Amino acid sequence: MSDQRIFQYVPSGAWGLVEPLFSQRAKSLLLTLIDFVENDVLPAENLFHAQLAPHGPERWKSIPAVLEELKNKAKKQGLWNLWLSKGEFSGMAGGSGGGLTNLEYAVMAEIMGHSVILAPQATNCSAPDTGNMEVLARFGTQAQKDKYLGRLLQGEIRSSFSMTEYGVASSDATNLKNTTARVEGDKVIVNGHKWWISGAGDPRNAIHIVLAVTDPSNPSPHKRHSLVLVQPSSKGVDVVRPLQVFGYDDAPEGHCEVKYKDVVIGVEEGIVGGRAGLGRGFEIIQARLGPGRLHHCMRSIGMASKALELLMQRVTDPIRKTFGKELHQHGTILADIANSRAEIDQARLLVLAAARQIDLHGAKAAMKDIGISKFTVPTMALRVVDRAIQVHGAEGICQDTHLPYFYAQLRTLRFADGPDEVHVQQIGKQELKRVPMLRERYDGVRKREEALFKAHGKVKAKL
Amino acid sequence: MSDQRIFQYVPSGAWGLVEPLFSQRAKSLLLTLIDFVENDVLPAENLFHAQLAPHGPERWKSIPAVLEELKNKAKKQGLWNLWLSKGEFSGMAGGSGGGLTNLEYAVMAEIMGHSVILAPQATNCSAPDTGNMEVLARFGTQAQKDKYLGRLLQGEIRSSFSMTEYGVASSDATNLKNTTARVEGDKVIVNGHKWWISGAGDPRNAIHIVLAVTDPSNPSPHKRHSLVLVQPSSKGVDVVRPLQVFGYDDAPEGHCEVKYKDVVIGVEEGIVGGRAGLGRGFEIIQARLGPGRLHHCMRSIGMASKALELLMQRVTDPIRKTFGKELHQHGTILADIANSRAEIDQARLLVLAAARQIDLHGAKAAMKDIGISKFTVPTMALRVVDRAIQVHGAEGICQDTHLPYFYAQLRTLRFADGPDEVHVQQIGKQELKRVPMLRERYDGVRKREEALFKAHGKVKAKL
Amino acid sequence: MSDQRIFQYVPSGAWGLVEPLFSQRAKSLLLTLIDFVENDVLPAENLFHAQLAPHGPERWKSIPAVLEELKNKAKKQGLWNLWLSKGEFSGMAGGSGGGLTNLEYAVMAEIMGHSVILAPQATNCSAPDTGNMEVLARFGTQAQKDKYLGRLLQGEIRSSFSMTEYGVASSDATNLKNTTARVEGDKVIVNGHKWWISGAGDPRNAIHIVLAVTDPSNPSPHKRHSLVLVQPSSKGVDVVRPLQVFGYDDAPEGHCEVKYKDVVIGVEEGIVGGRAGLGRGFEIIQARLGPGRLHHCMRSIGMASKALELLMQRVTDPIRKTFGKELHQHGTILADIANSRAEIDQARLLVLAAARQIDLHGAKAAMKDIGISKFTVPTMALRVVDRAIQVHGAEGICQDTHLPYFYAQLRTLRFADGPDEVHVQQIGKQELKRVPMLRERYDGVRKREEALFKAHGKVKAKL
Amino acid sequence: MSDQRIFQYVPSGAWGLVEPLFSQRAKSLLLTLIDFVENDVLPAENLFHAQLAPHGPERWKSIPAVLEELKNKAKKQGLWNLWLSKGEFSGMAGGSGGGLTNLEYAVMAEIMGHSVILAPQATNCSAPDTGNMEVLARFGTQAQKDKYLGRLLQGEIRSSFSMTEYGVASSDATNLKNTTARVEGDKVIVNGHKWWISGAGDPRNAIHIVLAVTDPSNPSPHKRHSLVLVQPSSKGVDVVRPLQVFGYDDAPEGHCEVKYKDVVIGVEEGIVGGRAGLGRGFEIIQARLGPGRLHHCMRSIGMASKALELLMQRVTDPIRKTFGKELHQHGTILADIANSRAEIDQARLLVLAAARQIDLHGAKAAMKDIGISKFTVPTMALRVVDRAIQVHGAEGICQDTHLPYFYAQLRTLRFADGPDEVHVQQIGKQELKRVPMLRERYDGVRKREEALFKAHGKVKAKL
Repeated sequence: MSDQRIFQYVPSGAWGLVEPLFSQRAKSLLLTLIDFVENDVLPAENLFHAQLAPHGPERWKSIPAVLEELKNKAKKQGLWNLWLSKGEFSGMAGGSGGGLTNLEYAVMAEIMGHSVILAPQATNCSAPDTGNMEVLARFGTQAQKDKYLGRLLQGEIRSSFSMTEYGVASSDATNLKNTTARVEGDKVIVNGHKWWISGAGDPRNAIHIVLAVTDPSNPSPHKRHSLVLVQPSSKGVDVVRPLQVFGYDDAPEGHCEVKYKDVVIGVEEGIVGGRAGLGRGFEIIQARLGPGRLHHCMRSIGMASKALELLMQRVTDPIRKTFGKELHQHGTILADIANSRAEIDQARLLVLAAARQIDLHGAKAAMKDIGISKFTVPTMALRVVDRAIQVHGAEGICQDTHLPYFYAQLRTLRFADGPDEVHVQQIGKQELKRVPMLRERYDGVRKREEALFKAHGKVKAKL
Repeated sequence: MSDQRIFQYVPSGAWGLVEPLFSQRAKSLLLTLIDFVENDVLPAENLFHAQLAPHGPERWKSIPAVLEELKNKAKKQGLWNLWLSKGEFSGMAGGSGGGLTNLEYAVMAEIMGHSVILAPQATNCSAPDTGNMEVLARFGTQAQKDKYLGRLLQGEIRSSFSMTEYGVASSDATNLKNTTARVEGDKVIVNGHKWWISGAGDPRNAIHIVLAVTDPSNPSPHKRHSLVLVQPSSKGVDVVRPLQVFGYDDAPEGHCEVKYKDVVIGVEEGIVGGRAGLGRGFEIIQARLGPGRLHHCMRSIGMASKALELLMQRVTDPIRKTFGKELHQHGTILADIANSRAEIDQARLLVLAAARQIDLHGAKAAMKDIGISKFTVPTMALRVVDRAIQVHGAEGICQDTHLPYFYAQLRTLRFADGPDEVHVQQIGKQELKRVPMLRERYDGVRKREEALFKAHGKVKAKL
Repeated sequence: MSDQRIFQYVPSGAWGLVEPLFSQRAKSLLLTLIDFVENDVLPAENLFHAQLAPHGPERWKSIPAVLEELKNKAKKQGLWNLWLSKGEFSGMAGGSGGGLTNLEYAVMAEIMGHSVILAPQATNCSAPDTGNMEVLARFGTQAQKDKYLGRLLQGEIRSSFSMTEYGVASSDATNLKNTTARVEGDKVIVNGHKWWISGAGDPRNAIHIVLAVTDPSNPSPHKRHSLVLVQPSSKGVDVVRPLQVFGYDDAPEGHCEVKYKDVVIGVEEGIVGGRAGLGRGFEIIQARLGPGRLHHCMRSIGMASKALELLMQRVTDPIRKTFGKELHQHGTILADIANSRAEIDQARLLVLAAARQIDLHGAKAAMKDIGISKFTVPTMALRVVDRAIQVHGAEGICQDTHLPYFYAQLRTLRFADGPDEVHVQQIGKQELKRVPMLRERYDGVRKREEALFKAHGKVKAKL
Repeated sequence: MSDQRIFQYVPSGAWGLVEPLFSQRAKSLLLTLIDFVENDVLPAENLFHAQLAPHGPERWKSIPAVLEELKNKAKKQGLWNLWLSKGEFSGMAGGSGGGLTNLEYAVMAEIMGHSVILAPQATNCSAPDTGNMEVLARFGTQAQKDKYLGRLLQGEIRSSFSMTEYGVASSDATNLKNTTARVEGDKVIVNGHKWWISGAGDPRNAIHIVLAVTDPSNPSPHKRHSLVLVQPSSKGVDVVRPLQVFGYDDAPEGHCEVKYKDVVIGVEEGIVGGRAGLGRGFEIIQARLGPGRLHHCMRSIGMASKALELLMQRVTDPIRKTFGKELHQHGTILADIANSRAEIDQARLLVLAAARQIDLHGAKAAMKDIGISKFTVPTMALRVVDRAIQVHGAEGICQDTHLPYFYAQLRTLRFADGPDEVHVQQIGKQELKRVPMLRERYDGVRKREEALFKAHGKVKAKL
């Protein structure tokens, strides 16, 4: 019975492979989450938008009331901080979290993708907060944890990760040299110009984690940076403007251009990890990225899945008949459905296998699987959403469906955390590391072939 | 020398085929247009946006001053109403027009696509005005021409074509039955609910040409409709809201939801063609569509071409180096460029051949070529623009380039004037009309083959 | 250690998901199979071809000696009849088989795909024999089993499945009406014209299982056919010619055109299941198809995997440098590798999930998953093999690599057992069966949304 | 009337653009050619194959009688050596040729593509003979012309171009260093190992034009090679084996592996151009390639066009009904037709524009257009042929249609004369040469924009 409920979101094919790897508790949480998303979150989406001011400065000042309601419900149902792995933050308020494996949480992230705007926020599972909490938990000083981590885990404040530099080809992270955090005694002075700082528009934002150069002359380009904790209310922080994605501003969080001018913080207070954290910026970033990428992927699959649901309802809508037939009876529509289904199913399994790799061997060992997911899933999801747009006609491109917004969101994932091209090249190169082993195997085959020809009294000749 | 200037926009391959078909005057106009777009229109684009109010009701009330400047310049240089075919509107103020062949104008429409927002407006070559002027010129009464056509030709007013119905699968035009124009004596009363009425937000808009049912019981579904001229200031016209394309509102023109409630007009004044025009709605629409579709295609090719120009400048920008190389030295970028070039070149030739067909045989005979262009070009242009977005990274998706706006515009063309799928099906069916002739040819070959086998004393057997 | 050996063929991502579902015995068999393929089968491939006569009638008369050697080795190592599910044929000589789950065997079928010509034959896991053995085991009379099944299980004889009719659109199985098996008393007389009868060229072939109409006037089109056991040595059986696939004849098995003219057999002896089997042709066929399709898919993935191995060795071959670089350093090659890897990985997981579905819920319940695999995998594999061909240049298209042969084999899978298009349409339709449930869910969301708007004192309006 | 006949092969869209560029004579020749192909050549194709021995050495010894008949007919109708440009070989027997422009001949090459096996041979327009005749005519000594060119022009002998080296990455022509032609006094001694020598299996073959190193230490890698005329009957020439393409051998011409061992010829007689031709190998090759590539492209378009004709007849064949409908009424078939038509039409125009470029500006100036055609057309044609195969089901893959052979032929064109990838990279790089001009244009726009903002009293700010 409960499986049938799950099959409404996760098809039996995928479930058949992962169910044996699910704990009883995780399965139960999954069902609770499905109900929560369907009964509470999805019905709140349009209200959330209606409670936002449509434009102007007030758009960036208030938080829709319905969101706080959802957060309270989620907490009560144990759906809070689901992304938190078992035991990692134990002992902290709000720190119990899901205690889920990466595989288990991945399935839940897909469910959240059905309401990509609200479900992650409602459950305190939103980027960039999740990654930032990880950074603080693993690398922050106790004082930093006390100041920020607890409130983040409780969902009282929000945060930004301030990495991409304005006017810099940031897909090569070593290019990030224009933002500096000069250490002078026990002070550090931050100067820089960043953009695409998600969440920087949010009135609840209490902290930017800023990647900045602290040691420009270090011979290793990967030891020059540190992460600096900058409060947006500090003197010298200027949130210049929100950027739009295909015309969308993602208020109240926003993706902002931000300037830091002579922002002063204490070293011990401001550098993640305190003075000991100086020069560890890249090291910490690396640790932050793996699982987060899979969360994006699974939410994307949720979006694709929802787009397909909308598509299927549209093409069977009797009032949408053209030329005497429902849309699904025309031309390529059934093929669009079948192909979308095939593509979504494949992508889901790919990401689940990657999540399982993290569980088995850790994020580093899973980098190849994560990378393949990273460059595969958004493109797939864009394709499915685009098909859904097309069957909706003009309605599919405007504010009356979520589809164009889904498209815009997904499109950014083809460069967020590194453009597809970088991941494709890296995977290509990693795959080539198998070549020596392949040559050995193929040489062995050739040798045994020669012996076999000889044994059979035949000469190996070109055909 | 002048050819070199043309080659900056139209590559020599295409030019070599069409140049012999260009009049000297058209060639000269083309060069004037190129200069105008580059020297006057493109530099005005950002100013145009800066002169618009950013949001709120005032956004829909004013027209940027720079636009009127451009219109005056265009008139002085003979670049006004270029779309007007030779002699069609002669004797009217502003009615001299380009006097160009469809082929000649097609090449110019591509140039305008480089500034798709402003160049068509600046030269009075914008949809939906051009199609509406055609309707009035060919089918309007003299009084209707006097009232609207002259001012449209002068660029004093703008207009809408009000066809798509809210909540109706409008890609099958016979589904359009909910908007009615009830004839009562010498009055006609319009009621209906439309949307995607481009230009209906514009303060200069002086006329909606509304497709409405006047004869619901006519046995022929194609004789039930008439075109009704409705002034937006009339009692009963309600512009409900602008629709967004992705997040863009295309102010001040807009694409609007419009309700008509008991709007009363005189039959002779309100029905296109007067009382004699009753029941001719579909007939008139058909005549309106052919060349307009090619104009959209050529402007799309201009957009794709410009996107490729942006892409190429980006990937050779020395400050965009990653991993020690300029972007074009990485992976698939050169292939993206070569493929984009190949796709644009092919699409351009396709549309030019279709335009030539109209010149040779008329729009009706060219419907197959027009249809192929219609479903081919926007998809191609979307692909090129998407590649350009990708190399720009996050910058490519926000308000700092025209690329996401181009994408949004082009995406609508995959359903405007009928979704791709409808055109694909129609072309497929038309192509199948060749089958009887093919069978005859192939049967002939088989018969001669038998004779030949016999003559050579061989028996035809399966191999 | 042993996992590392497995990872040479099955990447750790997929293995991580399926390993918990593998029995210890299956894992051990998998390792044995990998060694057998690499040490014995692959080295024998070229010898197998060299031991075949190059052309003429003798090409269809002998069986390469090396094949029998391989079969003996496979038997000794317990690699015989691996496809046989647990217990199904127990008590028969050769009938112990693999005793594997569908999931376990699927992984092994991929390994066999690395030597698609020899490995399945060497292990008695070849189509169409496996399907035919299933038919006989489940539906044959004891006498039929005694006569054919035992020898098939021992690999002493081979068999054909004679279904596709010459000149008939066989993808709609109800079109198959031209081959008849007229029952006269206790005799049945077979007449018909079939083609693409795989294995009919083989000198070891001892039985054709022929689909023929026995009850043409049965009101149900699915009860008109029976399966008839025809010995190729019978009077009236004419193997007309071998068909070529892209020029390949697949000797000595071949894919043949076959005519049956007044072939007489006893009913009890000739109808599968004896007289009780009359009219059950379609029913039996259906039962035969599910797992067999997944075997084809997994072998195809093995072929794609091997093609990628060849590609990677080629592009890193130092003697293949062009313009001063190895091939992988040029343009799109790394992207080809990464995309191939991503596509293979996704397809493998898809098929494994389908195999797991059969294990969990039976073949019928798994039809959707099987169908998606069926239309997805061959196209994917063709794409990968084509990329491998391309990097090999002219060598990749000729007899010096297996690649063009792989391509030809895979290409047939896009219509064997029904063309992709039929499966795509069926999956599209099946997927649409979810719509009522979707509507219910979405209606529920809308109702709760309304309540929520009311509770928050907001009116839901169009944006 | 005659236009209708042309439209059966060249659609009116393309014809409308090129017809004004056709001479009256060319138009008349085109009609003659269409009749010849349809009435004489196509009916002879199967007979040609039936007159070839099916296998064994005799397959490579005889020439089907029907071919000579066709050649005689072609000569009588003025369809001989159509590829010969105006006046180039005048004064030679057989040297009058077509006297056509490249554009005119391109259209005819498409017609020949409908019978790609026979039409080019029947009209003496086959590769590699055409290119070889060009080499001899432009660069040969008078004695060489007397000995070979006249007989080639008459179709009495055939020839090979011996370039690709065995085991060498020949797509980078500077890699070709293993075949040497050592000059010793007035003798030259050739040693080398080549393959893919088309036509080397043909009993009529009288000359191999061999690319060989004559000056290995020349500082310029492009001056090290010469072209050597080697008679296949010479001592030391060993035609090792025919290569297969997929499983096709292309007998009697073949594509052969050839070894040259100490083959001795006189310098003046053996080096193309005599002693003065030493070191000019690459220079001569370059001159040979341009138009030939377009011929391949146009023949490919003819093949695609024919494949679409077969597809359309198949999907409307009433005996091919499945599930109660003709194939064209199912799913994606109409889309396949429409897309094939769109792709063929675009590709044709692309190649015609390139041919026109050669006519206007010469082959060198047209290299970009030729390159784009080269990498675009075969892939397009493969796609169309593959769709045609698919609707034919298994019949589409075997010897009963030309489709798999078309596929095999077209597949080789993706690396013949350089793989797609090399051309794609070159076109990408050439396109980037436009960047400085683009930057200048865009900088100009930016400057004028600034002035305009100032003039309007606005400050340009980020939105």
